[in-house]
Amino acid sequence: MKHKPSTQASYAAILLCISSLAMPAHAQFAKPEDAIKYRKAALTVMGAHFGRVAAMASGRAPYDAKAAAENAALAETMSKLPWAAFPEGSDKGETKAKSEIWTDKARFAEAADKLQVEMSKLTVAARVGTLDALKPAVASVGGTCKNCHDNFRQ
Amino acid sequence: MKHKPSTQASYAAILLCISSLAMPAHAQFAKPEDAIKYRKAALTVMGAHFGRVAAMASGRAPYDAKAAAENAALAETMSKLPWAAFPEGSDKGETKAKSEIWTDKARFAEAADKLQVEMSKLTVAARVGTLDALKPAVASVGGTCKNCHDNFRQ
Repeated sequence: MKHKPSTQASYAAILLCISSLAMPAHAQFAKPEDAIKYRKAALTVMGAHFGRVAAMASGRAPYDAKAAAENAALAETMSKLPWAAFPEGSDKGETKAKSEIWTDKARFAEAADKLQVEMSKLTVAARVGTLDALKPAVASVGGTCKNCHDNFRQ
Repeated sequence: MKHKPSTQASYAAILLCISSLAMPAHAQFAKPEDAIKYRKAALTVMGAHFGRVAAMASGRAPYDAKAAAENAALAETMSKLPWAAFPEGSDKGETKAKSEIWTDKARFAEAADKLQVEMSKLTVAARVGTLDALKPAVASVGGTCKNCHDNFRQ
């Protein structure tokens, strides 16, 4: 089946949007160690902000709806960033990345996508403004963190 | 001069908004080394995204209006984060922070504010969609980076 040029152009535009959403940074790293430093930094910042929301969900920190929403939004923003920073050759050096990231790219991409989806749900849940809405969304994000660490981090 | 209670309440609300804008993370760090790791990570991510915009402004990378706007927005978001992560006691350890950060807090806060203001101008300039608009805004941000590093980083 042959698509009309205009339809093909639409497909191209949609694909461009998707890749842009998944990789907003148009990441460029001169050296593998730059990519490693960047992705670790992005994950550190993401972890700090998600951690603040998780602390509220678990009762380790007092619930503050505004702070929960702000931290969730930041964690979601950060969740989009690390994935462009796993270029070929960045499996060596100061990194705990397992080789499976490069040998099973499809599964790694799926895990990265899953995290971003759950993070966007967390932002929505945090905006509801109740602990009851927050808790299951935090648990879902936590599950994706653990799953990815189990499979792709030494 | 005595303000009416309602006016005082408005002032309080405005001050709350300002402090919230300057410190959206409501940062909480269990240990000084957590704060150090976080602020270095936030500055690394900020530097990476600002660096991509700066590379376009200087001609080291091809100009891409969409990428410039995205990276500027990310750099602006990141520029708000590090400042809550300089608690007392975090001057020791894996940090290049000078003691002046804590002995001259007002000047450090002013430098941090200045960066955030110039970053927000950069985002606006990047959205214009021309290199001519981008260049002076990049230079202004670069000036605040250098000034802060000269004064507050070893």
